[in-house]
Amino acid sequence: MKTFDVVVIGGGPGGMTAGMMLNQMGKTVALIQESQDSFGGVCLNRGCMPTKSLLKAAKIHRDAKQAYKYGLDLQVAPVDLKRLRAVTDEDLNTLRMMIQGMMGSAQVATFRGKGCFQSAHEILVSNPDGSTELVRGGQIIIATGSESVELPFAPFDGQHILSSDQMLSNTDLPKKLLIIGGGAIGCEFATLYHSFGSAVVLVEALETLLPREDQEAGKALQAAFENQGLEVKTGTMIEHLTVENGQVKVKYKDIDATVTVDKVLVGVGRKPNVAGLNLEAAGVKTERGAVSVNQFMQTSVPHIYALGDAIGGLMLAHAAEKEGQLLAMNMAQGTNIPLEESAVPRVAFSYPEVAAVGVSNATAGIRSFTMPEVPNGRSVVDKVTPAFVKLFIEEETTVIVGAIIISEAATEMIHEMALAVENRLTLGQVGKTVHAHPTHSTSVVKAVHHFN
Amino acid sequence: MKTFDVVVIGGGPGGMTAGMMLNQMGKTVALIQESQDSFGGVCLNRGCMPTKSLLKAAKIHRDAKQAYKYGLDLQVAPVDLKRLRAVTDEDLNTLRMMIQGMMGSAQVATFRGKGCFQSAHEILVSNPDGSTELVRGGQIIIATGSESVELPFAPFDGQHILSSDQMLSNTDLPKKLLIIGGGAIGCEFATLYHSFGSAVVLVEALETLLPREDQEAGKALQAAFENQGLEVKTGTMIEHLTVENGQVKVKYKDIDATVTVDKVLVGVGRKPNVAGLNLEAAGVKTERGAVSVNQFMQTSVPHIYALGDAIGGLMLAHAAEKEGQLLAMNMAQGTNIPLEESAVPRVAFSYPEVAAVGVSNATAGIRSFTMPEVPNGRSVVDKVTPAFVKLFIEEETTVIVGAIIISEAATEMIHEMALAVENRLTLGQVGKTVHAHPTHSTSVVKAVHHFN
Repeated sequence: MKTFDVVVIGGGPGGMTAGMMLNQMGKTVALIQESQDSFGGVCLNRGCMPTKSLLKAAKIHRDAKQAYKYGLDLQVAPVDLKRLRAVTDEDLNTLRMMIQGMMGSAQVATFRGKGCFQSAHEILVSNPDGSTELVRGGQIIIATGSESVELPFAPFDGQHILSSDQMLSNTDLPKKLLIIGGGAIGCEFATLYHSFGSAVVLVEALETLLPREDQEAGKALQAAFENQGLEVKTGTMIEHLTVENGQVKVKYKDIDATVTVDKVLVGVGRKPNVAGLNLEAAGVKTERGAVSVNQFMQTSVPHIYALGDAIGGLMLAHAAEKEGQLLAMNMAQGTNIPLEESAVPRVAFSYPEVAAVGVSNATAGIRSFTMPEVPNGRSVVDKVTPAFVKLFIEEETTVIVGAIIISEAATEMIHEMALAVENRLTLGQVGKTVHAHPTHSTSVVKAVHHFN
Repeated sequence: MKTFDVVVIGGGPGGMTAGMMLNQMGKTVALIQESQDSFGGVCLNRGCMPTKSLLKAAKIHRDAKQAYKYGLDLQVAPVDLKRLRAVTDEDLNTLRMMIQGMMGSAQVATFRGKGCFQSAHEILVSNPDGSTELVRGGQIIIATGSESVELPFAPFDGQHILSSDQMLSNTDLPKKLLIIGGGAIGCEFATLYHSFGSAVVLVEALETLLPREDQEAGKALQAAFENQGLEVKTGTMIEHLTVENGQVKVKYKDIDATVTVDKVLVGVGRKPNVAGLNLEAAGVKTERGAVSVNQFMQTSVPHIYALGDAIGGLMLAHAAEKEGQLLAMNMAQGTNIPLEESAVPRVAFSYPEVAAVGVSNATAGIRSFTMPEVPNGRSVVDKVTPAFVKLFIEEETTVIVGAIIISEAATEMIHEMALAVENRLTLGQVGKTVHAHPTHSTSVVKAVHHFN
């Protein structure tokens, strides 16, 4: 049996970061990655990266269709999803090679198979060829990520009712697509397929899109989507779906009519990958499907840690990465720095982009200010909708504790606000900072100047 | 004679800002704007805004020509500069209406004519209809902006040898364009016409492009331009230009060959608009063609102030705006806050974009660190060159005192660095801030993490 200081189960952004840092800091490390994926996790293989590759193509296709607005003459052929997916696969290969390069420079022992606890220190790795191998870790990190949640009445069939994973491989452009779930995943796919020319219906059970975010922003995003011709149904539940003659009949709850679509994307959320880990053998406790951890990412078994999507919460690649860094530092240096995720940016690469950081509610002592359409010359020459900017400040100090932006380039602009939230900068400190003209970022400082 | 607390000569970003703020703070204000332009100055009429409008069209045209990289099929017609300019004019009209709206809500008396000092308190306004009007100001602000510098051997003819103003109105796409001057203006026009399909030669007398910026960055930009097929000749002077048979023969200094091009853009810089102001009548002193001011923007005559391009220096719209804000505050509130421009971002909206803030030289006590190609998944899926990031820190404190970025979205990304420089944040304070994945901005924090 091979023995390591630390065994990491899962080679996504969190597990890889922790494993490689621990190795750099002198620990012997094993990294177990299931064989159907490369290292990089859902993010690289079936999440952030393939969606962003397709969203870039969607942006160029969308711009081209509106070329007349810019005085240009372009003939736009319908998209061929097979070709787009081939380009995405090339991108992913490049990214996998980059990751292989990073891995190659680290001295981490890699295992390509499914890991499963045998005891609190032993993991059985089942290799794709059927063989098994037992590895022992002085400490263990569970970084197994998450998978798409299935609706009980709508099992994924990969053709008519699809998960986001399946939708990314889909090469058949639906005339009409229904998306269940108005979170970041649903909004990004809505932009993707609407840009490609599908009629899109986006359904969210709660009252606003991006329901974890500020409601005013959710409504502004909905208005922007509706202006583009997307159909958005918030506060709407699905009662059942029926596949019939190659189409899907959708029955809404409490609404008498049905609607028929070509495909349904179920994007109602993700759940931690804990089934099959045999956590019981190690004595690791879960809560509502996620591995339970304290603020040091320690599970109910002191030498076993967990991070990333496996512990629930934000379920973002960059949050997992941060957790991996912190955990590795704490484990290698014996420190006890608690996890603090209040300043982790939350982004949707939809059109328009949405980005938020910090608090999203004006609770006691917090005051908010909204500019629903910040006047900005850059929006005029770019022919895009003016930015929506909402800021949250601590009343006593005027420290900026939260922000949400809907704008062209919002996913870049948010980092100024992230820096402010993380370092507790005030309205005055941001307001005195000169912003370059003419940029989208001036919308942020205008909101700061007008805050009242 | 009409009398005002403050008379502002020049309705560009600096003059307008100062005038409107002073009025809000209770002063009576006259704003004199020459009649051939709307309020908004060079920035709106012949600078930032029309270039950005055209650069947006250039970006969409450029993306369309590379659509195959994204798996898309687009037929791209040659650009028609007449159509593009018509779109730009529409944009400018929208912007002018926005400015009129702002002006309308302020109680500033506007004069549309050329202002000229009669004494230290009196300005004669010459109206376009030939009539004149005398206005008196208790205090006066000179905000007359700047104009393109002409080369002694190459006077602007508007057809073959053009200023940037003239180039913006040009509707005749040159097969071959020579641009003299590798500063921000030259680099933006190089991107513009190269994107539209002209063969472009960009000539800079000094050793690197963007010669006021870090040399390593200037060289990186040059390499990026050359990779795109642009011809860049740094360290090269022009001896003379001859217009012959509708073309321009260019003779370089110290190089034996000549080159023939269709048009020449002279973008060697701008000079303050002080001629015709009759500064002598007021006793206002100039130095090297610019109005001399102290750190409170006060001229040699204590009740006369100057700001923006008229005082030389950075010559940026957002610097003038900041100066206008500070000056108005000092004048209205009797404070003496000195002008501090170390954290004013400097940007070129070329392709790739360049953005800098703070110091650009590693002098004593300052240490720099360069990542010439930051690995970033976003660059891969966007199919763009990886970012160049160079940071300057104060060795003793690790405070970030300067940064220069060459990247897609650099002009937005720079604001995180501007906030850091303005508020003296350290590598650690920026480094602990989580950046959203996958964004271009992660390149900044990667450089911060790798700084050594």
